[in-house]
Amino acid sequence: MSAKKSAYPPEVWAIRETSFDPRMIARNETIFALANGHLGLRGNFEEERGNAVDGTYVNGFYEETPIVYGEIAYGYAQNRQVMLNVANGKIIRLFLAGEPLDLSTGTLLAYERRLDLRSGLLHRNLRWRSPSGAELELETRRLVSFARRHVAAIDYRLRILRAPKGATLRIESEVNGDTHNQSGAEDPRIGTHFRERALTVTRAEAGGNGGRALSGIVVQQTTNTRFAVACAFDHLVSGALPGWMCTEAAVGARADSARISLVGELPEAVEPACGVDLRFTKFLAYCTSLELSKEEHERRAGETVSAAKEAGFKILASEQRSELDRFWATADVSIEGDDALLQGIRYNLFSLFQSAGRDGRTSIAAKGLTGEGYEGHYFWDTEIYVLPVFTYLDPGIARALVRYRLSILDKARARAIEMSQRGALFPWRTIGGEETSPYYPAGSAQYHIDADIVFAFRRYMEAARDEGLLLERGAEMVFEAARLWADLGTYSESKGGDFCINEVTGPDEYTALVNNNLYTNLMAQANLEYAHELAARLGSEAGGEYRRIASAIGLEESEVEGWRQAAARMHVPVDRERGIHKQDDLFLDRAVWDFAGTPKESYPLLLHYHPLVIYRFQVLKQPDVVLAQVLRGERFSMAEKRRNFDYYDAITTGDSSLSPCIQSVAAAELGYIEKAYGYFMRTARMDLDDVNGNVETGVHTAAMAGTWISLVYGFAGMRDYRGRLSFSPRLPAQWSRLDFKLRFQGRLLEVALTHREAVYTLAEGEPLAIAHGGRDVVLQAGRASAVSLIPQLECVIFDLDGVITDTAEHHFRAWKRLADELGLAFDRSVNERLKGVGRLESLEIILEQAGRSLPEGERRQLAERKNGYYRELIGGIGPGDLLPGIGALLGELRESGIKIAVASASHNVWEVVRRLQIEPLLDHIVDPAGVVKGKPDPEIFYRAAEALGVPFDHCAGVEDAAAGIAAIRAAGMFAVGIGSSLKEADFRLSDTGALTAEALWREFGRWASARSG
Amino acid sequence: MSAKKSAYPPEVWAIRETSFDPRMIARNETIFALANGHLGLRGNFEEERGNAVDGTYVNGFYEETPIVYGEIAYGYAQNRQVMLNVANGKIIRLFLAGEPLDLSTGTLLAYERRLDLRSGLLHRNLRWRSPSGAELELETRRLVSFARRHVAAIDYRLRILRAPKGATLRIESEVNGDTHNQSGAEDPRIGTHFRERALTVTRAEAGGNGGRALSGIVVQQTTNTRFAVACAFDHLVSGALPGWMCTEAAVGARADSARISLVGELPEAVEPACGVDLRFTKFLAYCTSLELSKEEHERRAGETVSAAKEAGFKILASEQRSELDRFWATADVSIEGDDALLQGIRYNLFSLFQSAGRDGRTSIAAKGLTGEGYEGHYFWDTEIYVLPVFTYLDPGIARALVRYRLSILDKARARAIEMSQRGALFPWRTIGGEETSPYYPAGSAQYHIDADIVFAFRRYMEAARDEGLLLERGAEMVFEAARLWADLGTYSESKGGDFCINEVTGPDEYTALVNNNLYTNLMAQANLEYAHELAARLGSEAGGEYRRIASAIGLEESEVEGWRQAAARMHVPVDRERGIHKQDDLFLDRAVWDFAGTPKESYPLLLHYHPLVIYRFQVLKQPDVVLAQVLRGERFSMAEKRRNFDYYDAITTGDSSLSPCIQSVAAAELGYIEKAYGYFMRTARMDLDDVNGNVETGVHTAAMAGTWISLVYGFAGMRDYRGRLSFSPRLPAQWSRLDFKLRFQGRLLEVALTHREAVYTLAEGEPLAIAHGGRDVVLQAGRASAVSLIPQLECVIFDLDGVITDTAEHHFRAWKRLADELGLAFDRSVNERLKGVGRLESLEIILEQAGRSLPEGERRQLAERKNGYYRELIGGIGPGDLLPGIGALLGELRESGIKIAVASASHNVWEVVRRLQIEPLLDHIVDPAGVVKGKPDPEIFYRAAEALGVPFDHCAGVEDAAAGIAAIRAAGMFAVGIGSSLKEADFRLSDTGALTAEALWREFGRWASARSG
Repeated sequence: MSAKKSAYPPEVWAIRETSFDPRMIARNETIFALANGHLGLRGNFEEERGNAVDGTYVNGFYEETPIVYGEIAYGYAQNRQVMLNVANGKIIRLFLAGEPLDLSTGTLLAYERRLDLRSGLLHRNLRWRSPSGAELELETRRLVSFARRHVAAIDYRLRILRAPKGATLRIESEVNGDTHNQSGAEDPRIGTHFRERALTVTRAEAGGNGGRALSGIVVQQTTNTRFAVACAFDHLVSGALPGWMCTEAAVGARADSARISLVGELPEAVEPACGVDLRFTKFLAYCTSLELSKEEHERRAGETVSAAKEAGFKILASEQRSELDRFWATADVSIEGDDALLQGIRYNLFSLFQSAGRDGRTSIAAKGLTGEGYEGHYFWDTEIYVLPVFTYLDPGIARALVRYRLSILDKARARAIEMSQRGALFPWRTIGGEETSPYYPAGSAQYHIDADIVFAFRRYMEAARDEGLLLERGAEMVFEAARLWADLGTYSESKGGDFCINEVTGPDEYTALVNNNLYTNLMAQANLEYAHELAARLGSEAGGEYRRIASAIGLEESEVEGWRQAAARMHVPVDRERGIHKQDDLFLDRAVWDFAGTPKESYPLLLHYHPLVIYRFQVLKQPDVVLAQVLRGERFSMAEKRRNFDYYDAITTGDSSLSPCIQSVAAAELGYIEKAYGYFMRTARMDLDDVNGNVETGVHTAAMAGTWISLVYGFAGMRDYRGRLSFSPRLPAQWSRLDFKLRFQGRLLEVALTHREAVYTLAEGEPLAIAHGGRDVVLQAGRASAVSLIPQLECVIFDLDGVITDTAEHHFRAWKRLADELGLAFDRSVNERLKGVGRLESLEIILEQAGRSLPEGERRQLAERKNGYYRELIGGIGPGDLLPGIGALLGELRESGIKIAVASASHNVWEVVRRLQIEPLLDHIVDPAGVVKGKPDPEIFYRAAEALGVPFDHCAGVEDAAAGIAAIRAAGMFAVGIGSSLKEADFRLSDTGALTAEALWREFGRWASARSG
Repeated sequence: MSAKKSAYPPEVWAIRETSFDPRMIARNETIFALANGHLGLRGNFEEERGNAVDGTYVNGFYEETPIVYGEIAYGYAQNRQVMLNVANGKIIRLFLAGEPLDLSTGTLLAYERRLDLRSGLLHRNLRWRSPSGAELELETRRLVSFARRHVAAIDYRLRILRAPKGATLRIESEVNGDTHNQSGAEDPRIGTHFRERALTVTRAEAGGNGGRALSGIVVQQTTNTRFAVACAFDHLVSGALPGWMCTEAAVGARADSARISLVGELPEAVEPACGVDLRFTKFLAYCTSLELSKEEHERRAGETVSAAKEAGFKILASEQRSELDRFWATADVSIEGDDALLQGIRYNLFSLFQSAGRDGRTSIAAKGLTGEGYEGHYFWDTEIYVLPVFTYLDPGIARALVRYRLSILDKARARAIEMSQRGALFPWRTIGGEETSPYYPAGSAQYHIDADIVFAFRRYMEAARDEGLLLERGAEMVFEAARLWADLGTYSESKGGDFCINEVTGPDEYTALVNNNLYTNLMAQANLEYAHELAARLGSEAGGEYRRIASAIGLEESEVEGWRQAAARMHVPVDRERGIHKQDDLFLDRAVWDFAGTPKESYPLLLHYHPLVIYRFQVLKQPDVVLAQVLRGERFSMAEKRRNFDYYDAITTGDSSLSPCIQSVAAAELGYIEKAYGYFMRTARMDLDDVNGNVETGVHTAAMAGTWISLVYGFAGMRDYRGRLSFSPRLPAQWSRLDFKLRFQGRLLEVALTHREAVYTLAEGEPLAIAHGGRDVVLQAGRASAVSLIPQLECVIFDLDGVITDTAEHHFRAWKRLADELGLAFDRSVNERLKGVGRLESLEIILEQAGRSLPEGERRQLAERKNGYYRELIGGIGPGDLLPGIGALLGELRESGIKIAVASASHNVWEVVRRLQIEPLLDHIVDPAGVVKGKPDPEIFYRAAEALGVPFDHCAGVEDAAAGIAAIRAAGMFAVGIGSSLKEADFRLSDTGALTAEALWREFGRWASARSG
């Protein structure tokens, strides 16, 4: 979908930079960053020259600095927390014959960089001729070890191809502690403002063993948080020159860096044919005082780097490969038909694996460990985007991310008190656990973070059944969050006694400080329900443990009952007229943003309009209602989902990277597959193609997770409500096959999808019941269960008027009588426009046609009068009034086990059906009562299928009006049109006489087969 | 009302400090500050020692400094503007025998400070014995000249009473340019944050004429705004000692101050009997580059100080007296009965006179020129609080304040563009015209400032008829503000097509970012209406001028018509159920703040709760709806005003100094005189008694103006809708008399009020028609028009049931029949509870009594059935059913010209009246249709009196039920009770037989006389 040509060839297991482009340096530093959840190195060149942002980050290692406000108020977040750019250990400088290796000078004869997603190694190969004509080949490999969390290594192989006799070769390897974060910019999403130096070097040493060793250490300490980080380094060297030695082991002039240097002299001139080889491997270990004591971490860094050196690069690389093999064994996804896409997906999964904290003290930052955007903060992204991925692909990592939240529970309790609430209130953005949002309307006001955390926790618990974690601290967290909601909300008289949550901000940050944000209310409801269920379950299954927890947090049974009540009476804002949910109480009262009058360059809006302006309009940064219906889909009917999506998607800007994946999942569920595909493609290569233009500040981890979510929740239609997996696959036309795997309750499930078939294989574990398209499928280990995706006709839904009987004629006569009485012109051509249209609207059409208008009260009376005439007429209906062939058709369908429903806009449907004596043949009747929107809205057809439990695409609808045909097609059903003008019908007949069961089967089959192309 | 004992004796023309109390220093520096609208000197001691905050301020002289935000967003105010503490010219240091004059050392033998409100001089007299035993008397007088805006002077008279021979006397007089503003504190209402030095001294010179002159100059310049201020000084000396001379004329060590010193030696020992006298007068002139060019202002300062010296202190003092005589000739207010109060009122008026800018470039700061609170900013306080006072007391100053707004119109236009709006958007807080609110939810979001400015402008125009200013720029401002509203608002479908204004903050800052804030909508409506009227009037009366203005701002006629439409369709949020206006669309959906659970020390709430917490509840910082009904009273019925006040007053904290005066005016209108008095007393001496505990940071100018507003709009009941004055006086019991004057359309109007009489005298000018209590009074120059304030009986309002006829009996029988049918116990004792109660509520009482409950639909049916029975019964009613005496009474009242109304809760009132054949005797009937709240709400009685145009207290109400009596009393009417149990009635009879016209007259007269004290 992106118009930009990709910078990287579409290899499915690698990201390759094929030529050196100085304009791409900053972006590539992010793309080629390596990390292991603890330590992250940006893809900087070892030689430093030309680098954009030299960056090295340790997850959870931050400095605090007071937030300065224009105007302070009580309870504002006090400090920023900023993930620090720590000592740069990547530096290896090369000087040949006095000339530094610098790609912007001399001539680059060959260049390639490659990130291998299976080996986890970053390769760089180049051949360079210096300004004076010396020539060399360099091959580096770099890793940040998944097996040894503190360790990184750079394998540096040099071949001198051309150099004069006596030329010196000098290699300097350094760890530089004089590091700084980038300073703030105008964009509120980037930037850091320290008023004093964040890091001070407290120790810098090189060359132990009397200056002869190739090792050293740099220790940095933060000013305010008093955290320390030690970077120890050591080297292996082979292929030495004569006279080669560690000539220097030096500490920088300001005592803030440590360096060792090797210098040698070429005894002879070198020619390509007899090049000189050198191999130089640098080992790094980063340990912090956060995991170990201040005394210990320095020592441990030294020991760790020694052990790595001992092992050597080859062992480290082979460990790396094993860890990734294990990861890919579950995580790999394959798509047939689009290599660039597959590359994007794999890169995203690889990046998530690189970014997520593993130690229970750290989480996953918005930009991972690849850059300084969003200051290295953890947001709700972790729970709503990233956690589902690890829950199903790597439950161990999911557990660590959950444990991070448990570790800051006490800080969340303190924050609740500060905000005058009970329970626990998690920070909207943080590293250490304190709230750090400097703008509360789009920060602290996002109370939904509490419910998001509990939602993800429940999903993890249901998939991983981690009872230990639940009892250890998980239940406590769920209860404390429920407490917050119970205290925050209020039963409001003006909302009929509903439980209302006021003055909050939902996920959509283009609207702030609202009452009854739908997303917040539904997520809070889920939190309250879960807390209540959990208390009940633990009370009966683990009484002792429950009593211990309850007593520790002073929990009363009445409180638990209060949670149930609050959940049951939670306010759900709806607009009855439009049949959609309201994003919040007032959202639909606002004017719609002038999209047509907004030039492209005025996006993202937040950089071009004052918040007061943006907040005043209906315009979304992020899908809010749509996200609610993705996460809590069981709370919405399909008709509601469709109308919500249609309404809100049209007013959603692309201003947040978190949007497209959610829009993709929602669109897929509604059968908007092309739209779903479009949104998906914006996430899948968001970073590789720099769709948002800001990759240089780091990758978008949430969007990366969104890729997998789009595939699995979107195209595979997976849902995991209450610990039960269901699938409802719908592949885009562009793909021929999609494969992925899931870990679930100790099992490994493989899913393979084509357009015609879904194959579920339980690779490991006990039998598992899943659902496909609403029906149970029980999987046995090692056995593949294939389910056809070609729709089968299971249900026919008939319109009444003009399809089953010609009440249309009765209507016409009743209208005619009324029109004659009123002296209005009315004939059959006008009558055509009334088909499928309600009574009042019909009258309006007649009046409008006749150029008349009447007050509403009178219109109602007249419509009532017409209905009287009509009811007189239908009083005479009998079985003989069935249209030709219909009686036989109903009988045949019934015999073949096809379900039959009538879906009519007529309030008289029950009476007519009774008089026709076909009631015993019908499985279901949908009358207009309770249907919010009439045809062409698909609601009435959805409802018939939902009532009978038949997938929509297994239904045929029979209609005689254009609005009805449109409704059937919108519902994703096979549309049969009675009437030659119904061009949109999938199967058209001039009258019911030709409509046989056989014809229906045949045409449905053709249609089903074609759409599963 | 304040529990604190006043610090100053209750003198009616002076503020006197009778003893020296170091704890009062900071507070007294504010109280004894002198200013003239241009220059302000805090009441610092000349000797500096012991001063709290040395402060010297020039109105409109400010520095800008960037606002630092926690998180920046588009359109945020960029810079702070801070009124600067400029060069301190007050310094006169005295050393006797080497000992400095310092009141904290030695012995203070006598001390007094006195601010004379008529002379405008600040006196200090003291007698002091130094630690070593020397003794002196000091008398200083200080003024900041109203006649010469740049000039201040200090007359310093010294008498040495005791000193040894040879003792030196040294006097140093200095102007110190090393001045700083106070630094910020935790309270968001105070404090300034400069990142660099705001003021630099560019010139400091002393002792011209070869060091022998006693003059000098200090010039300071701001760093960012590049404004300059020059302070020139000079001296007159008399009574010299031998050898006395200007020994030094020096510039401070850092070249930032200028000083002259006099030193003499006592040739003989001094004893009290033969004291040595010295008089030393210091003249100061402060001129800025804002009024003059950079080159000129320094020269002008020198010339100005020379001229002042030439005139001498005596002339300056006499000019000062003349200016104040002129001011007080109009502005003086007198109240008999409370000297402390009168002192407070006069001090407040004096302070306003001191604070208001006169030059059309400056306005009046929230703290005047007395301190640094609110950074010297101008707010809506100017228009809503201060301008009405000057409009009626000193139209020249009012004009200058209006001209200030016109001077920043172009900046308001630029701000509108920045905020994506058309027209002009005035800054919420500013000095130079730019928006400087660092917290937009309680700053820029207060769009109502635009309407406030136009509202005050219209009032000024109507009172001063300043057509020149209107055409010069005034009309343009009104049009541009109307443009803003037309563009900001939107016609909302969900509000029935009403014009809605969303996402704004009203005056109440404990609720932010709401839709349809009532105050904002009504004020915007007034703005739009005025703009439309003005365009129409100018178009017809001053076509050429109008075309010039319209063309200059590109005004189209369709736009003007759009203003009319928007005003006509402006949304007015109401709660029909409660019969009150909603502060905003959602206000009443919120829970009410837990006042009972909030300890006293948690106020003001803004210092103890996060805004998110405060915003979530119904709790007011400032009256919002109540202010709307004070300013736009013609838009509310009396019943609405009463219910609004009752509801909102109960949830208004005392957290803003702007509240009490508005609450006082509203309470007075409703006859809540004690309450009005209580609120008034909180404003009248707010600063003298330091009610809010923060006088040290400056006086509260808006509250000071509020004192006068409370008197005139509150107790005198003045209204000035559309250029017409009306009065409706109601004096508190504590006072015997209130006198004040007003300037209006070139006239001088004197108002004298006692409890029994209002006397209006037109002291100057053409005849004027005013209104008193709803009736016209035409005033002729020089003639006093006295109007009695003792209510006269003009109208009797009868309840129907049980008063005019015994339908009560029919009701009883109808209910009894229904109850019997349902098998419910029901008797006359239960029936008593139904009196004055509606049909459905009555049924509920019966059901509840019988322990039964029924669904609502059924209840409605049963009530309907009872009504059928009742209507059967009343079908038989005739004139014979009039209760005893009523027929005669109605006839008598009619003959005496007393108006007669029936106000009944019965839907059958019309039928019953007709059958009784008394309809011709009645002037008005109020039936329950359209009455929002039944008795005991006074609405139905208010409506009867309003319909007949009779003041409420000129009405008697006759009732047989307690709820009715309560309603009559609440309406401020004379309550006649039929029934011996009606203890609350003003006049009680056991039955109607005794109710004669004569008795009514007599008892009404007693009541009226008693309540008029």
